[in-house]
Amino acid sequence: MKICRFDNDRLGLVEGESVLDVTAALDIVPAVRWPAPPGDALIANLDNVRDEIDRLAPNAPARDIADVRLLSPIANPTKVIGAPVNYSTHADEAKADTGIHHGQKIKSIDEYGLFLKASSALVGPSEGVALRFTDRRNDHEVELAVIISRTVEKISRGQALSAVAGYAIGLDMTVRGSEDRSFRKSIDSYAVLGPWLVTADEINEPGNLDFELSVNGETRQKSNTSQLIYDIPRLIEYATSFYTLHPGDIIMTGTPAGVGPVSDGDVMVVEFERIGRMEVGVRAA
Amino acid sequence: MKICRFDNDRLGLVEGESVLDVTAALDIVPAVRWPAPPGDALIANLDNVRDEIDRLAPNAPARDIADVRLLSPIANPTKVIGAPVNYSTHADEAKADTGIHHGQKIKSIDEYGLFLKASSALVGPSEGVALRFTDRRNDHEVELAVIISRTVEKISRGQALSAVAGYAIGLDMTVRGSEDRSFRKSIDSYAVLGPWLVTADEINEPGNLDFELSVNGETRQKSNTSQLIYDIPRLIEYATSFYTLHPGDIIMTGTPAGVGPVSDGDVMVVEFERIGRMEVGVRAA
Repeated sequence: MKICRFDNDRLGLVEGESVLDVTAALDIVPAVRWPAPPGDALIANLDNVRDEIDRLAPNAPARDIADVRLLSPIANPTKVIGAPVNYSTHADEAKADTGIHHGQKIKSIDEYGLFLKASSALVGPSEGVALRFTDRRNDHEVELAVIISRTVEKISRGQALSAVAGYAIGLDMTVRGSEDRSFRKSIDSYAVLGPWLVTADEINEPGNLDFELSVNGETRQKSNTSQLIYDIPRLIEYATSFYTLHPGDIIMTGTPAGVGPVSDGDVMVVEFERIGRMEVGVRAA
Repeated sequence: MKICRFDNDRLGLVEGESVLDVTAALDIVPAVRWPAPPGDALIANLDNVRDEIDRLAPNAPARDIADVRLLSPIANPTKVIGAPVNYSTHADEAKADTGIHHGQKIKSIDEYGLFLKASSALVGPSEGVALRFTDRRNDHEVELAVIISRTVEKISRGQALSAVAGYAIGLDMTVRGSEDRSFRKSIDSYAVLGPWLVTADEINEPGNLDFELSVNGETRQKSNTSQLIYDIPRLIEYATSFYTLHPGDIIMTGTPAGVGPVSDGDVMVVEFERIGRMEVGVRAA
């Protein structure tokens, strides 16, 4: 099932080039009072929401997908997690390019661990990326994003995929410089998630997906998730050795070679096997 | 006004050694449906909650503060932000101690920028700190924590204090090592906030507060917020030059010299001028 959030927080079921408006399925998601339980309420209630979507879909009004405004399918993650240098091809380019490493030694993911991006940076593809610090280098980094389904602590890699709700495309936008990774990568709109959530049951082999990012029609990044240094189960195991994951937490799994700068007016297009196509505009803030 | 969260998410007004149970004031905080507006709903509605507390307090049942279990006064921050090396005395000790710098050059806050801690790491004083990786050095770092009152973007330092809801004591617990700061400082329970929220109107000079942390009765850290390199208005201005702040976002403003390891069974006590006394136990996870 491909589930999107669109226009003014409507819920959609994506089928081919259409979006079925199944917003009424959200009635099953309970309202919460302070203090809110941690996590995204839609993902915490995903099984029930899916049942409602199935029930509503046959009579749901259809829209052309090109006519809707796609927002991030996850609205309220407690954490957006990144995996540094998790493709060896990107490690190689980072070591070779002073515009990326800024005089800092590039280490391995074993040494770096994971990092955080601010959840306030999260946008959907139709919102686009609003560049700040346009005198500095602002790079695209395309990644497979893994969405966590439930509260999970210290899970082994053998069990880890049982805690995945689904997958989406992530863009870990980054301004280069000397600042802490969790600051440079947390600018408003620097975490793009979309175009929709593909539920885990639709992707049997998340560790073997082709993907490609182009800017203004020119291919910049092209790889396959089989090239991940820490694969998805290992990333989840590693994350939960430090902290609890909650429903809707997002793990951006790392980017392959080809990262590079974008500017005002650029258009990024990602094609991701079994997920789909995502187009994201770039503007100066 | 000193507002605490205690026991099973009850709301308290702290007066001297008593807690008045004003939980009914939470009825004014509206329930929210998915997608939740970003931020902590209590802080987003703080003016109304305060009016309700004033109305309820004269007839509220009182408890001895020593008898309640104090939780983090903020439940749902979108961001917990840290300020690295924001006291020159801590910069000096970090440069001198390989157990802190781990072979990495200690830079200035101008170069580092700010960093994130996971909101899933947040606990109140009565929950205590549960150490992981007890074969590594786990340090206390005591700080003034600033709580943001409203959604705020690109605010100048001259206006910044208008976006402060109040203050609390923060413990930025840290496992030393090579990992990214936002990973090492995000272990479950490694962000302690308490003992309560002191509303901004009670602290006219947040930039001139004495504070002291002891472990098992021995003073370890002792300073005054006048020694901050980036003061509170500058921290807020700087943060909002990168990202939007939301109600309940927490800025831990940095720690002075004297950081050091804690172990299973230790008791940390903080005394903070105009906030109060906070006691936090340490145990192995």
